[in-house]
Amino acid sequence: MQAQATGWPDITQALCVLLILLVPFAAAGIALINAGLGRSRSAAHAMLGSVCAMAVAAMVYFVCGFSWQGFPGRPAHAFTVAGKPWNWIAAEPFFFRGLALDGSPAALAAWLQMFSVGVAALIPLGAGNDRWRLGASCASTALLAGWTYPLFAHWVWGGGWLAQLGVHCGLGYGFLDAGGAGAIQAVGGLTALSIACILGPRRGKYAADGMPAAIPGHNAVLVLFACFLTWLGWIGLNGSGSLLFTGAAPGSVSLVAVNTTLSAAMAALVTAGITGMRFGRPDASLCANGWTGGLVASSAACAFVHPAAAAFTGAIAGALVTFSVEWLDARLGVDDPAGSISVHAAGGLWGVLAVGIFARIPQNRVLNGVGAGNSNQWLAQMAGIATLLAFVLPMTYSLNWLLNRFYPQRVSAEGESQGLDLYELGAGAYPEFVIHREDFRPR
Amino acid sequence: MQAQATGWPDITQALCVLLILLVPFAAAGIALINAGLGRSRSAAHAMLGSVCAMAVAAMVYFVCGFSWQGFPGRPAHAFTVAGKPWNWIAAEPFFFRGLALDGSPAALAAWLQMFSVGVAALIPLGAGNDRWRLGASCASTALLAGWTYPLFAHWVWGGGWLAQLGVHCGLGYGFLDAGGAGAIQAVGGLTALSIACILGPRRGKYAADGMPAAIPGHNAVLVLFACFLTWLGWIGLNGSGSLLFTGAAPGSVSLVAVNTTLSAAMAALVTAGITGMRFGRPDASLCANGWTGGLVASSAACAFVHPAAAAFTGAIAGALVTFSVEWLDARLGVDDPAGSISVHAAGGLWGVLAVGIFARIPQNRVLNGVGAGNSNQWLAQMAGIATLLAFVLPMTYSLNWLLNRFYPQRVSAEGESQGLDLYELGAGAYPEFVIHREDFRPR
Amino acid sequence: MQAQATGWPDITQALCVLLILLVPFAAAGIALINAGLGRSRSAAHAMLGSVCAMAVAAMVYFVCGFSWQGFPGRPAHAFTVAGKPWNWIAAEPFFFRGLALDGSPAALAAWLQMFSVGVAALIPLGAGNDRWRLGASCASTALLAGWTYPLFAHWVWGGGWLAQLGVHCGLGYGFLDAGGAGAIQAVGGLTALSIACILGPRRGKYAADGMPAAIPGHNAVLVLFACFLTWLGWIGLNGSGSLLFTGAAPGSVSLVAVNTTLSAAMAALVTAGITGMRFGRPDASLCANGWTGGLVASSAACAFVHPAAAAFTGAIAGALVTFSVEWLDARLGVDDPAGSISVHAAGGLWGVLAVGIFARIPQNRVLNGVGAGNSNQWLAQMAGIATLLAFVLPMTYSLNWLLNRFYPQRVSAEGESQGLDLYELGAGAYPEFVIHREDFRPR
Repeated sequence: MQAQATGWPDITQALCVLLILLVPFAAAGIALINAGLGRSRSAAHAMLGSVCAMAVAAMVYFVCGFSWQGFPGRPAHAFTVAGKPWNWIAAEPFFFRGLALDGSPAALAAWLQMFSVGVAALIPLGAGNDRWRLGASCASTALLAGWTYPLFAHWVWGGGWLAQLGVHCGLGYGFLDAGGAGAIQAVGGLTALSIACILGPRRGKYAADGMPAAIPGHNAVLVLFACFLTWLGWIGLNGSGSLLFTGAAPGSVSLVAVNTTLSAAMAALVTAGITGMRFGRPDASLCANGWTGGLVASSAACAFVHPAAAAFTGAIAGALVTFSVEWLDARLGVDDPAGSISVHAAGGLWGVLAVGIFARIPQNRVLNGVGAGNSNQWLAQMAGIATLLAFVLPMTYSLNWLLNRFYPQRVSAEGESQGLDLYELGAGAYPEFVIHREDFRPR
Repeated sequence: MQAQATGWPDITQALCVLLILLVPFAAAGIALINAGLGRSRSAAHAMLGSVCAMAVAAMVYFVCGFSWQGFPGRPAHAFTVAGKPWNWIAAEPFFFRGLALDGSPAALAAWLQMFSVGVAALIPLGAGNDRWRLGASCASTALLAGWTYPLFAHWVWGGGWLAQLGVHCGLGYGFLDAGGAGAIQAVGGLTALSIACILGPRRGKYAADGMPAAIPGHNAVLVLFACFLTWLGWIGLNGSGSLLFTGAAPGSVSLVAVNTTLSAAMAALVTAGITGMRFGRPDASLCANGWTGGLVASSAACAFVHPAAAAFTGAIAGALVTFSVEWLDARLGVDDPAGSISVHAAGGLWGVLAVGIFARIPQNRVLNGVGAGNSNQWLAQMAGIATLLAFVLPMTYSLNWLLNRFYPQRVSAEGESQGLDLYELGAGAYPEFVIHREDFRPR
Repeated sequence: MQAQATGWPDITQALCVLLILLVPFAAAGIALINAGLGRSRSAAHAMLGSVCAMAVAAMVYFVCGFSWQGFPGRPAHAFTVAGKPWNWIAAEPFFFRGLALDGSPAALAAWLQMFSVGVAALIPLGAGNDRWRLGASCASTALLAGWTYPLFAHWVWGGGWLAQLGVHCGLGYGFLDAGGAGAIQAVGGLTALSIACILGPRRGKYAADGMPAAIPGHNAVLVLFACFLTWLGWIGLNGSGSLLFTGAAPGSVSLVAVNTTLSAAMAALVTAGITGMRFGRPDASLCANGWTGGLVASSAACAFVHPAAAAFTGAIAGALVTFSVEWLDARLGVDDPAGSISVHAAGGLWGVLAVGIFARIPQNRVLNGVGAGNSNQWLAQMAGIATLLAFVLPMTYSLNWLLNRFYPQRVSAEGESQGLDLYELGAGAYPEFVIHREDFRPR
């Protein structure tokens, strides 16, 4: 709580509250995207899964998540390497008992993270569309919100070792991730990858020869409407993270908002252009994915780059999402109905890297709450990416694989062909509408 | 205007504006829940009814509602009992003429209440789904917004006699209701009960032997999406009420938001658990009701309790809503398609009571704008509950019963079987979609 | 940057940020209204068009739009007439290069305008529903956001000649338009008129004898839900415009919000009343249009009028929208599926005029950033209206007419009868729902 607590002015607190209160729109947007890109016969299940994931994430984060995540300057466990203390996990009491919810930076961070962890928890739901059991998704959410997310977030935002790379090793300002491209999006996206691999593709998605069938989402209007919600939600994520975790000035909210917007705009236009050129027609679902991918990619660097760099970051993200979706679907045989892996993991990792390329950070700023070094910011970013790929991904995969041993995550074949709504909830989402009955069975 | 006006700082004003601007999401969420839990053939009617109710409520509150409600420290009528002046109704001029809309606490309260009265007015619409005439619902809204709501709200938030129970009778801090569990939700929910009783059940809802038919809502996706909107809306209601009506510190917004979230989260999970255990499968509609019930129950005590108590309050609310829905439906024969009575009346009354059980209020605080006593807070809360049940419920029932004499509230049998959209609006909500034609006629 | 920069306090900045962040809801609401009032077979196209229009508008405004619009007190080109310098276009560098995005009024204005220009760009989309090609709508958006909008906005909000009418000619405070009834809505609405004329009516809309067929919107629930979003969005537009462009006090946000709400409320009720009297039943789509028309009409005067005047303004707007829709549809043969022209052009021009009739402006206020005269405010407003009708409308018509020469704006007959979703995007919005197949072909 160094930089932030000193002279934490009213306006910063007010803006933080405002921006945190936008984060639920990110959740609502992802929920609609997940449901809209799934089948109509599991639409209520997708939405209920989102509500339950938010609920489980908030509760678990309250119970123990914040205890591991903490905040810079507050109690934490450290191990000593080469004479330097490396902070690896926070040591807060459970149930927020050590924390006065009084508008201080730590209190606002705890509140923000209670919402952010829910956003991260919704990401895997899109990859598990149409086949992930409700109870298993809740259990998996508990693992994410109670362990994986807080641990990595402590390293990034809690004064942990990734943040300390700057002051201890001279790698720039340490790993920088203002809005959570790594700590929220990539963690969620890599969990989505684990879930998609553990669940396997939907029945009928791949023919015997491996050719993927296109299973279109059931409601493109909701998916595209959600783009407006995610837009606001990400301004909230990026802005509040910038203020709380990188000590940005309150006035920089206008920069963050413009950058976030331009990144999403360019990403959507690039996606529309690429799909238009490749398939002859722009693809509406992919454009929504591109838009959100642009938001994701803008997160890490939003407070440190010129708008032109943000637009460029978004353009790359749009291309990346487009090709990643196709690559996962057609080459790797990973069935990710909502594009969660491409949008949040690929987009998030690119966003983290973009800090190393584009960031222009004013001298003498204390970011991350732990001090800074001088150069090689990109090395700190690479360290974060390496940690995500070589530690977080195996950990989240193992946890979900273990969970799957004790509590099968995939619904039965009967439930899948019946639809999750009827099978798991006993009622369809749209009982009065007449639905087409084609079934995308393997040919 | 005692506590609040003294040193009413910029940040409090800014946060109040922010939180008031979240309240329309509560309205939007309730509107979607009402429409989504009704039939498709009255969906446009439900939404138009919501827009019209907001409009009528805002206009009527502007014309005369605020005149009766007022604000602590402003002109009011009092009667004297046992040597003490008991404030029973405000004496403001009509049309906001005595009020400068300048960002003062009284101005912000008038603005907030113009929105809140709309939220209260939407609650009965859910109970009258599929059979309440548009004109009658507008007239009923005028009675609510022009008389019932402002009168009770004056007693609670305008320096009225319920608020004075503390300073005059030593009952704690007087009746406390930070976010309107009683003054908004229970008033709206008890009006919903009156409307459901006056209208009677939908045709086909009960068989000759009294067995209820399940008439599922037509769009579960909208209902569950609305949970995200109500979540934000209630943070707005709870936060702005806490700042304006109980003099909470600006920093306590983080406490209020966390409490509101945890209460909703636990309520949804408990509802999912109970319905899962009882019916073998969690019920999506009931989970949405449970979530909203948790929000409602959190309102009164949000600024005064530890998050763990808020979570517990939500858990009880989730159970209460679940059993109340079943009890009204199967035992009492009250047809409440959107669960408005259970969510808002039962949840709201429980929320009011929870203040008496869990509240931890700092010493020497002036709440309610009128001073405080010392103990027995729970007695003040019971006085409020008794007033709601023994005075507000009969009053709102009588007013709507009288209205029904002069202006029948229920649509004709022909209109009901045709659907309110075609009958009252001349066009369906979804003219291009093919709809199932089953009709739930009495067997 | 005179009035605003002097003592630009924290709370004003915080409230500005808050209100700007509501503007995307205006965009989301218009997008849903456009899609909901169109056919189901072009619903995804309508939503993707909205997302792309927002993206193009933001990018183009970033590239060159702000360069022409500028902000009072910043570099601009002027011509001298009668010894007085008349400011006609700003002279900012491209790509925001001359602008620090630091929370200053100019930075906030640039950010707000990046969002507002998107709102303006969505308006023509509703008039072009079901037949406007995606690429052409993007190109047309670029013309609007890159030239037409910034030019007129410079005249109104950038210290341009319309704003200077007060200080140079003694016409009141110069042309006043706090929330953009002229600069955003009328500019967008007149562009919608141009587009509707250039595209011509939908196939099947008019019979050989000129009788219009009613082509109902495909989803009234989304349209009416959008009313809640536009409500919030307009509070954002009106509030932030008042603070940034007319130097309103932060406390006046409560006045602006109440005025905006009452104007929309009265407009919706008047529309419901008129359609109820004329057709025997209130029309849900027209009520949504009326509501939004009331919001539009409230914009210009929101910070300068008593709430009763705002309600009256809304009542007139409701009547105006109702008759304008019928007049365009039945008399002029202009096919405007979403009512964009009536809502935004007619409503906006009436709102601009209402300033001249109802405004009560405190003495000695510097509005528009350029100083003021003394009387005849209504003449300044008439000058603005004349400029809109005699300059902006021909300009936007010509630009789109030219565009149409090089890049046909209307989809082929085959594409129109197939539906824009399948024809331009290759996939429908609702692939699993069964759709009625009636086609409204010319009889």
